[in-house]
Parts: sequence; structure tokens; C-alpha cells
Amino acid sequence: MKNNLLKTALRARHAAPALSLLGTAAKNRALLAMARAVRAENDYLVSENKKDVAAARRKGLTQGLVHRLRLDEEKIAGIADSLERVAGLPDPVGRILETRKRPNGLVIKKVSVPIGVILIIYESRPNVTADCMALCLKSGNPVILKGGSEAISSNRALYRVLSAAARKKGIPEGAFEFIGTGDRGALKFLLGLNQVIDLVIPRGGEGLIRRVAAVSKIPVIKHFKGVCHVYVDKDADPGKSEDIVLNAKAQNPAVCNAMETLLVHESVAKKFLPGISGLLREKGVELRGCEKTRAIVPGVRPASEEDWGAEYLDLILSIRVVKDLEAAVGHIEKYGSRHSDAIVTENKKTAEAFTGAVDSACVFVNCSTRFNDGGEFGMGAEMGISTDKLHARGPMGLEELTSYKYVVLGNGQIRQ
Amino acid sequence: MKNNLLKTALRARHAAPALSLLGTAAKNRALLAMARAVRAENDYLVSENKKDVAAARRKGLTQGLVHRLRLDEEKIAGIADSLERVAGLPDPVGRILETRKRPNGLVIKKVSVPIGVILIIYESRPNVTADCMALCLKSGNPVILKGGSEAISSNRALYRVLSAAARKKGIPEGAFEFIGTGDRGALKFLLGLNQVIDLVIPRGGEGLIRRVAAVSKIPVIKHFKGVCHVYVDKDADPGKSEDIVLNAKAQNPAVCNAMETLLVHESVAKKFLPGISGLLREKGVELRGCEKTRAIVPGVRPASEEDWGAEYLDLILSIRVVKDLEAAVGHIEKYGSRHSDAIVTENKKTAEAFTGAVDSACVFVNCSTRFNDGGEFGMGAEMGISTDKLHARGPMGLEELTSYKYVVLGNGQIRQ
Repeated sequence: MKNNLLKTALRARHAAPALSLLGTAAKNRALLAMARAVRAENDYLVSENKKDVAAARRKGLTQGLVHRLRLDEEKIAGIADSLERVAGLPDPVGRILETRKRPNGLVIKKVSVPIGVILIIYESRPNVTADCMALCLKSGNPVILKGGSEAISSNRALYRVLSAAARKKGIPEGAFEFIGTGDRGALKFLLGLNQVIDLVIPRGGEGLIRRVAAVSKIPVIKHFKGVCHVYVDKDADPGKSEDIVLNAKAQNPAVCNAMETLLVHESVAKKFLPGISGLLREKGVELRGCEKTRAIVPGVRPASEEDWGAEYLDLILSIRVVKDLEAAVGHIEKYGSRHSDAIVTENKKTAEAFTGAVDSACVFVNCSTRFNDGGEFGMGAEMGISTDKLHARGPMGLEELTSYKYVVLGNGQIRQ
Repeated sequence: MKNNLLKTALRARHAAPALSLLGTAAKNRALLAMARAVRAENDYLVSENKKDVAAARRKGLTQGLVHRLRLDEEKIAGIADSLERVAGLPDPVGRILETRKRPNGLVIKKVSVPIGVILIIYESRPNVTADCMALCLKSGNPVILKGGSEAISSNRALYRVLSAAARKKGIPEGAFEFIGTGDRGALKFLLGLNQVIDLVIPRGGEGLIRRVAAVSKIPVIKHFKGVCHVYVDKDADPGKSEDIVLNAKAQNPAVCNAMETLLVHESVAKKFLPGISGLLREKGVELRGCEKTRAIVPGVRPASEEDWGAEYLDLILSIRVVKDLEAAVGHIEKYGSRHSDAIVTENKKTAEAFTGAVDSACVFVNCSTRFNDGGEFGMGAEMGISTDKLHARGPMGLEELTSYKYVVLGNGQIRQ
């Protein structure tokens, strides 16, 4: 088993030099061929996906999970569209990030280059397979795909269709590698290959990500979870506050950039909380609150210490009335996950104080936390969202999949 | 012991928010006061340094190491100059790296911010203490200094003088922390504090860096060693080739960006090697070579397989005659350390093929590998040199000590 895993990783490693030198046109031709192949193989993909859906039903997975897993003609067309969209994005490799001319005549160019072999570990949605293959190809990085067992047939089918189409367009062997089965021992072995693999991106539940981060010898870019806040300031516009709170909580509660805790300035709590509580309850949201919240809104369950740090990923919201901006920032600092936090205020100074003090990947003013997303940021697609501070923070698109090298051009200069 | 280490690290952690919001003027005032304090305390610093020098002599350290350790009035003035130079550099925090306007009216700003608590582990030269304090203060990062035992008195004295001067100018407690003694257990404990410390930068011998990288739970930016190459191409200018080879090997052989292996195209080997060998030997360089080299230059010791991967850090050079550019690139790929590699050629296409194919932090054309240096790159000073591909590659100056956050400004936008 280990022998096969090592061979797989080495195939990716050996593809790296050729892939890094591949021209934009060659990469885009392959991406467009991959999109055509996905459309042409619709029936095959649907029939392979049915195996996963049937297995999920047998295992009793929730309706929501089964829905995420299922591939139909519309979703498959969406995958093809996404491949075409990546073909249309600018090539992130070979950008001149900076040019310095030195007094001694040296010209120092900082040039973007691929990172190298990327291992992506993900759960559930099969379209991640195609997105990651597209982003890694466009950024010149070999990718090793390790999807979840619940989507194994769909992922393998997509991998087969896409890699065959790419090979026909001259993409080197090893550009895409697929790891189908494998227990935790297999994952641990892979995560020890720091001589072969350059970066690991785990996507999925907090448990998976913590396991990966704990054992990996390879650098990991990740977010553990999204405990996101909206702070309604004393100078907030009431209409915007309602729209943003409802959207951040209820538009898609199962995702990492959904709000989990609402913070309200004490001077507007009595005015704001009754109305928003009614609207949230209409959407089916269960409310848990601090004592002050409970004194204002009847029927709110008391929030425990665990509630403040909880990533519900569900129609549940904790609410806290805070004394002022500082208390709101302090709460976010203590309980947040540095993912996505928003303030609603018409006061520019308060907004600036909030965005300066809140140490999160994305800080929002007068808009929903749900906008922390590569697509919404205009990156085309995303490889994941990072709450780390090194290399990439926030949504990871094509540029975040590159490193750089310095190319220094001289005319015989030597160091004095 | 562990309790004290944890307290030290937490003091740094707690200083991070205030330090990240410190204005440019406040940071520069402190840096200039630190420079004045170093000059004023010249005698104290020299007398504390004498303890280290005496201990080094007792231990029988080499002349070179004792020289690196010694602080005299000139070196102390150099430290003060360096502090002033960092005060004069642009503030790396709060730069707007990118602004995107989205069709829905959102304005997305990518803003540079400090990384957080930085642990620097270093050996030997006491001026590293001052450089790191200056760079971390200017970039808004609390720093924990862990210097080598051989410079303990000098480092502590510099730390005392500099941090007292900074405190008087309002720099918060915890901005600078110093870890004096401590065995490997202490280091391992520190490297496990990934909830408190954000980044580790080890500087020193390969053994130290490998130990740190092996046990650290905190992200590490590093280079293990510099096995640097100069490739003299068939289209090389002979005069430039001689200057660059001599400089890269002999100007300062003890440093990571010095050349360790010379590669020469076979079609110019007979012309080039005899002359350069004489010049290198005049500088005291011992030559080790492949069979072809030895057939051309008498008295060259045979190079073993270990020689090709060796970081001599000394007046020793291995020489290999190669068939062509591809063989040169292959040698560098196999034996190099991805640090600094140079080509000498007048052929633009060959130069481009070399800079494209060689996967090193800095690739040089017609100049010495010795230019891989923050000062030479115009960064003012450097925190270290990275051969990693994530976050920072090549010299690490002020900008490389920052991360970024996204600040998203809206007017009530919600996600559809």
C-alpha cells in the first residue's frame, strides 16, 4: 500500500517541471477539452454517481448530504462551465510581481511560479474534484486528489473523464493523481512525504482538518471552522442590519461563512432585537441568548459558554448584547475563529476601528459574512478558504496557488 | 521552566493587538531611540561581549567564529546605523495590496497586517538580535529571541539596552521577549506552542534548522543549506565568468550564498578551466573535480558523490564538466539546495531556459550568487533567507514579515 502511495506521489513530483513550463494556450486547450468531455460523458457520470447516492441512502445520510452528493445534468453542466471559466482566467504563472533596479545595474525580477505538488483532502461534493483539477492545472501544479469515501465512485469517474481528456491534449502524466481507497494509515503516510509533496489543503469537517494538521510533516493551509459574527453597532442602519443578519444566518446555514453569533450594542438592543428575533424565527432559527437578550426577547434559551464558541452549521443562533465596540471586538477575539466577521454601522470611525482591531481573514462592513468566497471575490473558483496567516488568507484562488522566484539579470556584477 | 517559557510567549501574544495598531511615527521614534541607546551604551555592550569572546577562546572556537562574535565600536555603530536604516524604510503594515470593485458594489481591499508572534532561533552573531528586533517592531510583530549560548551575554546586553529604549517610547511590554538559557527540551516546548506563536525562523547551521523543522508544530520558514552553483555556458564571456566564479567562491566562502560547485560546458572546459583553476588556487581554494576536469587540470582531487551535495562553507570547490545546459540543470536539480544558482552566458535564449528550468529561490544571470541577500536586494535588512515555497522565498525583509486581511466595504449587500 505504502509502496503504491509513494509511486503515486512520485509520479506527481516528476510531472512538476514540465507542468511548470507549460504555456497558457496549452493549459487552456486542455481545460476546454476537459469541459467538453464532462458534457459528453454525462450519462456515465450520472450512473457512477448513483452508486454513491445509493450507498449514502443505505448508510442513512441526511437529506442535505445526499443532495450535496448527487450529480444531475444541471450540476454536470455546472462543472463543465466552471472548467471553461478557469480557462478564461488569467494565467497566474509567470507574472512579474515586482522589478527592482539596483544602483549596481542589477535588475531583480520577482516572478510567480507554481508551488509544486499539492495534496487536496476533501469530503462530500464531487465537483471539488473538477474544480481542484482545473485550478491546479492552470497554476501549473500537479495535484493528488484524496476525496471522501462517500463520493468515491463519482470522484473516480470525474477523475477518469477529466484526466483522459487532458492527456489527449498533451498534459503530462502525473499532473493529476487519484487516491481512491485508504485508511487513516494511508493518509498519515502521505502526510509524511514532505520531500515529495509541497502543500496540503484539507477541506471538510473540523475533525478531519485537525487530524491532518496534527500529523502532517508537509505545510498545511486550512481553516478549522467558521464561528462568524455580525455586530450591530449603535449607529447601525436598522434595515441593513435586518437584511444582513437574516442573510448571514439563514441563506445557507450549513457553510463556514454563515453567522453563528449576533452581537448587538446595548443602546439599540431593545429596538432591534424583538423585530429581528421574529424574522429569524419565521425562517426557523432557534435563538439562544445572554441574560440581557432573554430579558428583551421572550422564549430565548440561555446560551452557555459552549454556545459562544460553537459552529452550529444549522438554523441556530446565539445572541449577545454588548456594552460597546470594544466588548464586541473582545468577544470576537475570545470566541471567534478568525474567519469572517461583520459590523453594521453608519459611523465610519467605528467601522475603521472594527476592521483594524478584528484579526480575521475577512472583515466586512455593512454586508453579509456570506461574501467570503472565491467566486464572490471575483477569483473565478476557489481551492479553499484559509484562516492561516502565512502564504494565503481568505479565499484561495489561482494566484494563491503560486509561489515566486527571483530572477536576477546582470552584466558581470560581483559583490564588493 | 515550562511555566516561565509559556509566560514569556503569552506576554508576546498579548502585545500583538496593540503592536499591530501602532502608527509608523511611533515605531520610527522608538527605532531612533534604540539606535541612540546602542551608541550611548557602547562600553557596556563591549564589556558584556568580552565575556562571550573569552568563553569562546576557552572553548577553542575557530578564529573565524570568534571574529563573528566580537563586538567593537565599529560593529556597534553598524548596529545603530542598521536600526536607523529600518526607521527609514517604508512601513510594511497597512499597505493596500489590491482593491477589487465587484458588480454588486462591494469594495474588497487586501490590506497588509502583521503576522503575529515570531520566534527567531539563531546562532553566533549578536547583531542578529538588533536586526530582528528592528524588523519585527517595524512590521508590528512581537518577537521572541532565542540566540545561541556562545553569544548569550552580548545578546542579553543588546536586548536590555534596546528594549529599555523602546519601552520609554511607549512600545508595549511583550513586543520583545528574550529566552536566555534553555536546553533542547526548552526549545521543543516552545516549538509546540502553535496556539501562541505564529511563525518560527531558524537561522544557523543545518543541524539546528533540521532539528527545529522536525519537531515544530508552528509553521517554519527556513533554508537548510546553500549548495549553490555557477554554470559557465558555451556562450559565456570569459572575463565575466572568471570574475563571477572567483567572487562566488572566494569573496566570503563561509556564507550560504557562496558557490560550492562549478559546472562548465564541455565545449569551453579546455579553454576556461586551466586559467580559473590557477586563479582559484591563488586564493587558496582546494579543487575537487570530475574525471574530465582532472584530465584538463593537473592535481585536482577526484570529487566523490558526497562532494556534489556538500555545503563546504570553506575554500573548497567541486568542478564538473557537463554536456550541455540540460545536464547542468539536471545536476542542479539533483544535488542543489534550491538556494542560489547562476548561469554565465551571452545567449539570451539559454539564459531564459536556465531561469525557467532551475527551481531555486534566486536564479542569477551573469552575476554572482553572493547577491542573494536582503541588503543587496534593497530590502534594507533581512530576517533570513528562505528556500521554502510558501509565504516567502529568497531574502525575507519587512514585507515578508506581513500577512494580509480582506476588508470588504458594503452598503447593505447580501448574498443571493
